[in-house]
Amino acid sequence: MSAARNLRVDGDRLVARLKALGDVGALPGGGVCRLALSPEDKAGRDLVVGWMKELGLAVRIDRLGNIVGTRAGTQGGPPVMIGSHIDTVRTGGLYDGNLGVLAGLEVIATLNDAGIATASPLAVAAFTNEEGARFQPDMMGSLAFVGGLDLETALATRGIDGATVGECLDAIGYAGDAPLGAAANAAKAYVELHIEQGPVLDAEGVAIGAVEQVQGISWTEFTFTGVSNHAGTTPMRMRHDAGLVAAAVAVEARRIAEAIGGDQVATVGYWQIGPNLVNVVPNAVTITVDLRNTDEVLLKKAEAMLHAFVGRTAAAEGVTATHRSLARFEPVPFSPTVIDRVAANAAALGLSLKRMPSGAGHDAQMLARICPAGMIFVPSKGGISHNVTEHTDPAEIAAGANVLLHTVLDLASGDVESKE
Amino acid sequence: MSAARNLRVDGDRLVARLKALGDVGALPGGGVCRLALSPEDKAGRDLVVGWMKELGLAVRIDRLGNIVGTRAGTQGGPPVMIGSHIDTVRTGGLYDGNLGVLAGLEVIATLNDAGIATASPLAVAAFTNEEGARFQPDMMGSLAFVGGLDLETALATRGIDGATVGECLDAIGYAGDAPLGAAANAAKAYVELHIEQGPVLDAEGVAIGAVEQVQGISWTEFTFTGVSNHAGTTPMRMRHDAGLVAAAVAVEARRIAEAIGGDQVATVGYWQIGPNLVNVVPNAVTITVDLRNTDEVLLKKAEAMLHAFVGRTAAAEGVTATHRSLARFEPVPFSPTVIDRVAANAAALGLSLKRMPSGAGHDAQMLARICPAGMIFVPSKGGISHNVTEHTDPAEIAAGANVLLHTVLDLASGDVESKE
Repeated sequence: MSAARNLRVDGDRLVARLKALGDVGALPGGGVCRLALSPEDKAGRDLVVGWMKELGLAVRIDRLGNIVGTRAGTQGGPPVMIGSHIDTVRTGGLYDGNLGVLAGLEVIATLNDAGIATASPLAVAAFTNEEGARFQPDMMGSLAFVGGLDLETALATRGIDGATVGECLDAIGYAGDAPLGAAANAAKAYVELHIEQGPVLDAEGVAIGAVEQVQGISWTEFTFTGVSNHAGTTPMRMRHDAGLVAAAVAVEARRIAEAIGGDQVATVGYWQIGPNLVNVVPNAVTITVDLRNTDEVLLKKAEAMLHAFVGRTAAAEGVTATHRSLARFEPVPFSPTVIDRVAANAAALGLSLKRMPSGAGHDAQMLARICPAGMIFVPSKGGISHNVTEHTDPAEIAAGANVLLHTVLDLASGDVESKE
Repeated sequence: MSAARNLRVDGDRLVARLKALGDVGALPGGGVCRLALSPEDKAGRDLVVGWMKELGLAVRIDRLGNIVGTRAGTQGGPPVMIGSHIDTVRTGGLYDGNLGVLAGLEVIATLNDAGIATASPLAVAAFTNEEGARFQPDMMGSLAFVGGLDLETALATRGIDGATVGECLDAIGYAGDAPLGAAANAAKAYVELHIEQGPVLDAEGVAIGAVEQVQGISWTEFTFTGVSNHAGTTPMRMRHDAGLVAAAVAVEARRIAEAIGGDQVATVGYWQIGPNLVNVVPNAVTITVDLRNTDEVLLKKAEAMLHAFVGRTAAAEGVTATHRSLARFEPVPFSPTVIDRVAANAAALGLSLKRMPSGAGHDAQMLARICPAGMIFVPSKGGISHNVTEHTDPAEIAAGANVLLHTVLDLASGDVESKE
């Protein structure tokens, strides 16, 4: 823990900012809609940029609309960056993304109030279009920020309403001039505070998650083609039932997840059945299998087990199986230094801690390409997220922000090893 | 075999009538659409009634539009009835139903040509709305004919296009005045020639099916309610996956069919998944299970096995299961006398024979309520039916009609035991 060991954030002030930002694009029944680069997003950005300036941060906006507010350090060099995003899904809550950005501002405010300077500069970032709810891919801003997506491609991306990213940036006045890419955006370290978006911390009564890695993701669509026969007149031995093969694959996906164990998850979420009639054997069935693991070797093993099962089960039923990959990302490990600092500060603050993976994607996984990065999770009530009823208690928010504060102070004072 | 042992139908004449009737409501690419009580159905009825009158039959039409043409016998008494239907599904073929009616006319024509009188009268029936494609339930006309459905209910039945059976009967001029019910419609026996609508005879190269019974049918809709969770952030142990339970039930339905064996079939044909997204655990899933068996005891056993599995699998996953019966019919056995006559005549005609169940419903199962009844199957190419490509070869049609001819002659000459 840093020298300023008794320093604490002002939880009420942080929650007040969350509520003020939640009023921008507020939905009638609760929750918020601030789709990326919409008029509501512009209003949210204006509010955040205003707060940054009030806190004395030097605000820089790049060509893709990523906002970075920097507080100088006594020794210069690249900043310790705190960040996340303020865009939301169509029916989002007040915490997803917003918490990471506004907790960053709360860290700055706390240090300002206490008159504490850090050796390294600090920066608070709000990245463009993390959700991907209007423009694909998600995490677009942070991906381009670290040089993983070229500007022209990003600007030409057309959203669900037909407009491009470039047009919308111009329309809301957030096409800045700061450069993108790793060379322009060096960081000493990156820390993101986020709601878990899953049920584990809430169910186990744990205050803080030290995120060790983001799960690798494998999405595969399988299409099975059989023969559509009469359910009454076709003996079982003469059937080629595409629905049966799909069902067997769904059951096997669960079995694979349990056999591999650990962090492995498997979900068959999407089904399309043809002809979808009570008394006709299905002949055209499409399903998706979503496999995730923090360990790339095990994720590949799960994929191999699944494909082997599909092959032999379809062959036994006389059904044709084809597949295509819808998404494939390797796991992203976070920095042990950052993880250890999160764990140590949670302990020092008397907060219970769980080392855990993130099952969802976050800007931190992009920043991990250019600097030691890590994440702090706080509980999501009932595991609910991307939903207007998303909730985290004020005390839980303050606890997470205090861990963030002291983790940032540690990283900004000491030497941080470069990207492992 | 009857005294007229060398008598044979005129297969060409029968096929010509099938084609002529198939021209009524013909679809551009082949096949036919004569939905019950439509203008096309009226045109088909007019054609059939005209043929009946040309053949000297006394035509009687009842209040539900069932058409019965009778040829007098030398000894009077109730007739041996040959029948089926001429309505079709929306994209039907030339054989389903039509064959049974027109083969009946071919039997009459053959006897007329040979100057043969039978002891008992003969009757050819075309029952209203067997398919149920426009008005539910299917087999409506034959059910009312035997007294299983009251006239008022039948006439008030509203079809998929909003019109009632009564309105449509009036519109096409087929609301006759003959009475319905078992007392009015006594028959000495009933025989129906039909395409198999399944793949067995065609695959096994067998000419004639002697149908022993119509399978009992059990349709159950299961609805599973779980919890819709994030596919990445929700550990397997915390899931309540409604889709997984449904998939396991589909796999179990196949296992039950194989475990019971014999005629047992099981089909999961209909699936509805909510929210049906790649990365969300399904929370609202509905499936149907279609179970059929010729043995009521075994059908009940299959139902019990299925419900027990659903109960324990849903409970293990923490998913709620509800169910409702969509249809439930006990198996209908046919008359051993009729079955034996079919088998004996096939043998005398040098035709291969298979004793088999019917997996689909037919008017014969309704007539079995009032008299000894049976069915003769001929092959369906590739098992395809309810389809414009439905096909049975002319030689196979003639073979079936000859078995029908001699079975009817046997039944019309001898004493037939009353309903077993």
